[in-house]
Amino acid sequence: MLVEAEVGHRIDKQTYVKAVPTCREGLIDAQYELSRSRRFATIVLLTGVSSAGKSEGVNRLLTWMDPRYIDTLAIGREDTEEQRSRPYMWRFWQILPPRGRMTILFEHWYTLPVWQHANGEISDAELGKRLAEINRFERMLTDEGILVVKFFLHITKKQLRQRLKHLASDPQTSWRVTEDDALYVKKYKPLMKSIEETLRLTSPGHAPWIVTEAADRRYRELTIGQSLLGAINARLDASAKPLGINRTRSYVPLAALDGRSVLSALDFAKCVASPRTYSNKLEALQGRLSQLIRDKRFMRHSLILAFEGCDAAGKGGTIRRVAQGIDPRLFRIVPIAKPSDDEAARPYLWRFWRHVPREGRVTIFDRSWYGRVLVERVEALCPEADWRRAYGEINDFEADLVASGAIVVKFWLAITKEEQLRRFKDRERRPFKRFKITKEDWRNRERWADYEQAVVDMVARTSTDIAPWTLVESEDKSFAHLKVLRTICERLETTL
Amino acid sequence: MLVEAEVGHRIDKQTYVKAVPTCREGLIDAQYELSRSRRFATIVLLTGVSSAGKSEGVNRLLTWMDPRYIDTLAIGREDTEEQRSRPYMWRFWQILPPRGRMTILFEHWYTLPVWQHANGEISDAELGKRLAEINRFERMLTDEGILVVKFFLHITKKQLRQRLKHLASDPQTSWRVTEDDALYVKKYKPLMKSIEETLRLTSPGHAPWIVTEAADRRYRELTIGQSLLGAINARLDASAKPLGINRTRSYVPLAALDGRSVLSALDFAKCVASPRTYSNKLEALQGRLSQLIRDKRFMRHSLILAFEGCDAAGKGGTIRRVAQGIDPRLFRIVPIAKPSDDEAARPYLWRFWRHVPREGRVTIFDRSWYGRVLVERVEALCPEADWRRAYGEINDFEADLVASGAIVVKFWLAITKEEQLRRFKDRERRPFKRFKITKEDWRNRERWADYEQAVVDMVARTSTDIAPWTLVESEDKSFAHLKVLRTICERLETTL
Repeated sequence: MLVEAEVGHRIDKQTYVKAVPTCREGLIDAQYELSRSRRFATIVLLTGVSSAGKSEGVNRLLTWMDPRYIDTLAIGREDTEEQRSRPYMWRFWQILPPRGRMTILFEHWYTLPVWQHANGEISDAELGKRLAEINRFERMLTDEGILVVKFFLHITKKQLRQRLKHLASDPQTSWRVTEDDALYVKKYKPLMKSIEETLRLTSPGHAPWIVTEAADRRYRELTIGQSLLGAINARLDASAKPLGINRTRSYVPLAALDGRSVLSALDFAKCVASPRTYSNKLEALQGRLSQLIRDKRFMRHSLILAFEGCDAAGKGGTIRRVAQGIDPRLFRIVPIAKPSDDEAARPYLWRFWRHVPREGRVTIFDRSWYGRVLVERVEALCPEADWRRAYGEINDFEADLVASGAIVVKFWLAITKEEQLRRFKDRERRPFKRFKITKEDWRNRERWADYEQAVVDMVARTSTDIAPWTLVESEDKSFAHLKVLRTICERLETTL
Repeated sequence: MLVEAEVGHRIDKQTYVKAVPTCREGLIDAQYELSRSRRFATIVLLTGVSSAGKSEGVNRLLTWMDPRYIDTLAIGREDTEEQRSRPYMWRFWQILPPRGRMTILFEHWYTLPVWQHANGEISDAELGKRLAEINRFERMLTDEGILVVKFFLHITKKQLRQRLKHLASDPQTSWRVTEDDALYVKKYKPLMKSIEETLRLTSPGHAPWIVTEAADRRYRELTIGQSLLGAINARLDASAKPLGINRTRSYVPLAALDGRSVLSALDFAKCVASPRTYSNKLEALQGRLSQLIRDKRFMRHSLILAFEGCDAAGKGGTIRRVAQGIDPRLFRIVPIAKPSDDEAARPYLWRFWRHVPREGRVTIFDRSWYGRVLVERVEALCPEADWRRAYGEINDFEADLVASGAIVVKFWLAITKEEQLRRFKDRERRPFKRFKITKEDWRNRERWADYEQAVVDMVARTSTDIAPWTLVESEDKSFAHLKVLRTICERLETTL
């Protein structure tokens, strides 16, 4: 879930200076509208390691808005005597804002369970149980009309280390570096694992996490401001409607403000030096894969490959190269197109569950369960509510697979719009390839930007620790084939 | 959650014979409508110890309906080779019915976790995590349009033992008694504890459990038939509406078919032999309570008493008698009336959280958080959706309290409608009591039956292992005082 927050999002000064006044104005307007009409209360949760910019973020919000209507608190790890002698949740009930007001929490109901899990003090099961309780609590808050907006400010371990070093080197700021900060560096990896799990299990439609890259101050602050404004306005719109309908409708995380994304961050110039290098490496990788699949230890696992990519990205060719490395008795290729009658009569994921391989086997999906959040979303083939909930359902599906020992490897084959045009034209020219290009392909091409946004959201919300996405620069087909094969081999080697 | 299923529900032959044809006709009509229109699929889960009547229930349904559109399966504890080598949930995905069909499951996704928890093989946390996963799975099924109807058929340990004895004594049926059955008797108590926990955590509005007393064959079968019919018809009504609105609206468990209830099962003739006995016992109990509260071990707990009852049931007098047994520095009485402005601006439960006592202290609520499912439900003071979800929220609230060491004791003071009339008239006659009776009291009295149903539902859905309801026969006030005090003392003694 964090990969989209590691692409180097940033906003230059000029854009920032231009965008801030509109954002401020919107926030102030929304705030006064709320304090006047008292339609609902707002709770903002900020999460992130130390130095991720939580306090600067809050300070900025307090400058941009009227601080008289905002309470800022940190309630989580430290107990007062008053709190200790009462049920754990009592502390949070005490500080619920009344309608018309806002509470910003630096530390909150996620702080303790995440920290305890990262420290190995509570088991995976206990974390799961606590997160289920939190889900019920937030569901209740939303049902009672409170808007809950949750930010996770992400910085990488390297950035964290740099920041602390920077702070420590300056006598003016060195006092800000505490022992706790050192602990964050030391515990970074388990902490991110606990956070991944938490983000995955607590992003329902009514209160999704907004994962924000926090390295760049301007990007971070503007994202917090704009997202908060968007969330409040969405709810103001919704609560103007009759009671009961859409009352719990909530906000949708915004597209990245700087236009950067995991896709734009790809280096499409990547290629293989020569055909000779390619064929040597290909053969070596296919051999390595073949051995891994025949490994005794693989008998306790299964391999599920999902290939997605825009038209003419090279899925077919890539799948062929992978298949060549596997004993044909052990794999099946499942092409996904329109559902059959049988499939359409059952829940969406049923047709993928049908093809889940048994232990020791491989299933290769040529297009996959991601169709719902790609083509079905972009072409409006299903209601918005259906694809919105699909991210969570897909994460649950993959968690079920992985829990049973399956290794799930997902590829997005990426090409540029120009390269697609070249390939389309090439296909039209060659009679034996003409069947591969249809009117629909040309039509899809017109919605390139929509598809791109769908891909970015998909990666942001379903690239999990247990089933990460691999984005493959496929401008050079040879490069793509090798990267895919290498990724599969590496995933198998790590797991076995 | 099981108390309402232990009141001795039964239906006589005549009523049964009269009711069955209508029920059958309704079921067949609904079934054909569904197989024609293919609007949605139905999954029926049957849960209960062996001999609770699961198979007879299914056989009856198959006689009443057209079995060609129904699949009956048991998938849960036993693995096939096919299933073992794939993710656990795969087996359930395989048997999802297509739209227009019905699947009845004797064993299902609850079977294994409940059984493992009862056997001590998995921890409370692991059960909680698994139930959260089940909730997500059922939520997905509902969102995908499948109707999920869940029955728990309840028989007491005594009834179970009798049935097995009865079956074993007859050579014709003795083959039906297996080793498994003996295990059910032996494990009855832990099993019911696991089931209580499961019912409490998996009864969302879209797929609530229907807890059915199963001792009487006719009552059991008719309840299953009528409830299923009600659920299908509710969904047929809802799915006739435009997509997106009310699509997940689900059924509501029916009122008991025989008119019996926990209230009608009370013996209102209970009384105290003489004033002398009363005052002796009262004093003794107050002394016992006083000692318990001063007990060192109570310093790690707190006591929360909730008093509910219809008008003139004697709440005030009873609370006074309890309070006399506690050091005044240690308790507070919180009368609950209309919410203040402060309270109305926050989630419903906020005003009760405010008064949660610290360790070593006692809070007595004169009326309580149950107002939402009593007066607010009956007088339509809140939208239906709000009081429907309140049962689950209240159970969560009390679970939070109990987890922190609080002892939660809840009383419903019950009197007959005739006794209420006598007390109202008495109050009107005596000038010093006249302030106690208002027009509203007379008005509430007109809705006696609605209030009674609300009380029955409240007890059925919120009388949990961790915070059970005590129904107090209050026709004789002295008897009520003693029963309440005794209950409090016993709960304290069990916990300390």
